[in-house]
Amino acid sequence: MIALDANGADGGPSIVAEGAARSGESVLLFGPRAQLGEPAGQVALVDAPERIAGGEEPVKAVRSRPEASIVQAARAVGEGRAEALVSAGTTGPTMAAATLSVKRIKGVHRPALAVLLPVPGGPVLLLDCGANVEVRPEHLVQFAHMGAGFMEAVLGVERPSVGLLSVGQEQGKGPPDVLEAGERLGEGSLNYVGNVEGFDLTAGTAQVVVADGFTGNVALKVLEGTSKALLRAIRDAVSGSPLATVGGLMIRGRVGRLRAEIDPEAVGGAILLGLRRPVIVAHGSFGPEGIANAVRLGRRAVDERMVERTAESLAAAGALRSAPAVSVARP
Amino acid sequence: MIALDANGADGGPSIVAEGAARSGESVLLFGPRAQLGEPAGQVALVDAPERIAGGEEPVKAVRSRPEASIVQAARAVGEGRAEALVSAGTTGPTMAAATLSVKRIKGVHRPALAVLLPVPGGPVLLLDCGANVEVRPEHLVQFAHMGAGFMEAVLGVERPSVGLLSVGQEQGKGPPDVLEAGERLGEGSLNYVGNVEGFDLTAGTAQVVVADGFTGNVALKVLEGTSKALLRAIRDAVSGSPLATVGGLMIRGRVGRLRAEIDPEAVGGAILLGLRRPVIVAHGSFGPEGIANAVRLGRRAVDERMVERTAESLAAAGALRSAPAVSVARP
Repeated sequence: MIALDANGADGGPSIVAEGAARSGESVLLFGPRAQLGEPAGQVALVDAPERIAGGEEPVKAVRSRPEASIVQAARAVGEGRAEALVSAGTTGPTMAAATLSVKRIKGVHRPALAVLLPVPGGPVLLLDCGANVEVRPEHLVQFAHMGAGFMEAVLGVERPSVGLLSVGQEQGKGPPDVLEAGERLGEGSLNYVGNVEGFDLTAGTAQVVVADGFTGNVALKVLEGTSKALLRAIRDAVSGSPLATVGGLMIRGRVGRLRAEIDPEAVGGAILLGLRRPVIVAHGSFGPEGIANAVRLGRRAVDERMVERTAESLAAAGALRSAPAVSVARP
Repeated sequence: MIALDANGADGGPSIVAEGAARSGESVLLFGPRAQLGEPAGQVALVDAPERIAGGEEPVKAVRSRPEASIVQAARAVGEGRAEALVSAGTTGPTMAAATLSVKRIKGVHRPALAVLLPVPGGPVLLLDCGANVEVRPEHLVQFAHMGAGFMEAVLGVERPSVGLLSVGQEQGKGPPDVLEAGERLGEGSLNYVGNVEGFDLTAGTAQVVVADGFTGNVALKVLEGTSKALLRAIRDAVSGSPLATVGGLMIRGRVGRLRAEIDPEAVGGAILLGLRRPVIVAHGSFGPEGIANAVRLGRRAVDERMVERTAESLAAAGALRSAPAVSVARP
């Protein structure tokens, strides 16, 4: 059973309900019954009209509003009524609710937000994309294991190559925390390929790229912004063509197909790693197919034991912290 | 007079000499006479065959090899025989030689490497792109003034908008150092527009985008890598077309023009700001026209009093450090 928050998607709850039905998976949907009516397919609806909006301070909102749909959905996962959490809403409340109810893997310092980059030629997992704006070397090492665990379990990539995002490929390039993390990863069990640079995100040099959440967030948004600006510029160049009627249509068709190839909806959204259950944050802009893919991604992560395999990899590498993890959500 | 290092360009010293002649400016060229022969145009040659390669540790190499071409060229600027330094070589040795000989503006903590992003619709200046992998808030504040000073003096942009690269546009988003720099800039005299995100680099939200050298370097390379990957993917899509003979040629022409629009050669390279004279680092891949543009950029920075105006702006904002700057190059 996948817990799915129907609130928060740009297209409204009905889009999310449609995606849930389309996924073919068993879904526990949290949203406004008044708007949604009786759900279709293998979907059970829990009436949860209250929603946490993007502008609110996430941790405060999640703690003070136990009936909000995302808080109820996360609680369903924490209490074992569902095996994974999928949200189509904003990242902040989803992270706060998941950290509160789903909790971290024992020995994991911090969860990290991972995004599968729609790179032509094969996906690249970038993490952390914004869960932690400041990190220590031991966090980066854990992120590497968490990212590799996802790629192995969910995408079936054997021994994915792992790189550390820095300012040069040479060893010794980067700030002290990155250098220290690189040394530890070099001595560890992962398929660590060393430093990678900004260029490498789209070159596929490493299948997992590890960064602090500040740099990772900037990198992700630069990549998205550049793709959009370029595709728009190409479209504009084409529609200004004197051969617009024939050639323009043809080009538009080809650019459209390229767009589809790098479409984030095909991927299923961002994944919050390091928690005891899979947590997926779909893009707010997703339509039903994007939501359905996010639900399927959650299902696959459960079936392929992503969390358990990540925990085993961290334990085998001695990368778990010795004291048991205390949830930041319980003061 | 512009001091120009002929060594270091991918195409060899003759490409640089050709660019010097083409610029139409008075140039003091440092390079191997055996290879270059007698220079053309307003170019005077100083025989300096010794070159510092990319793999060497820059500061060490610059200190131990006073006859290397980049060291001689920087010395010519430091001693007043030339007014600006242009290098077509690797960034590290240029920065080290310039810091040693050209020296920082009094009260400037650290020079910063600025790059004009070839964004369709108007250039955006991103700094620091890698001179300082770790910075303090007062450094970011100085970078903002240095970047604005360049845009005003050299590009003629009146009161350029300045943004601070972070993970969200809301105030309060980002690590403590970025927040503190944002507060100071908000109280200052610049046209400060607040936090900008990775998307904004290509959206033109701010004309000057300020970041630490780690994040700025990653952002720049992600932008370059994404552009290249996308343009390649488009070219591949087009050449696989059944209408390749006619439509393909047409599309290739249009993509080619777009490529030209975002061509870094048209811009003139990176600029090292915060020193007492303009210092330009051209791309190693530049041909003669790119080199000529870099020389013209240096000339314009001198004529428009970029350094003096930046120093005045820093002083008026109280952003200079009170103790006189001590060159890091003199232990």
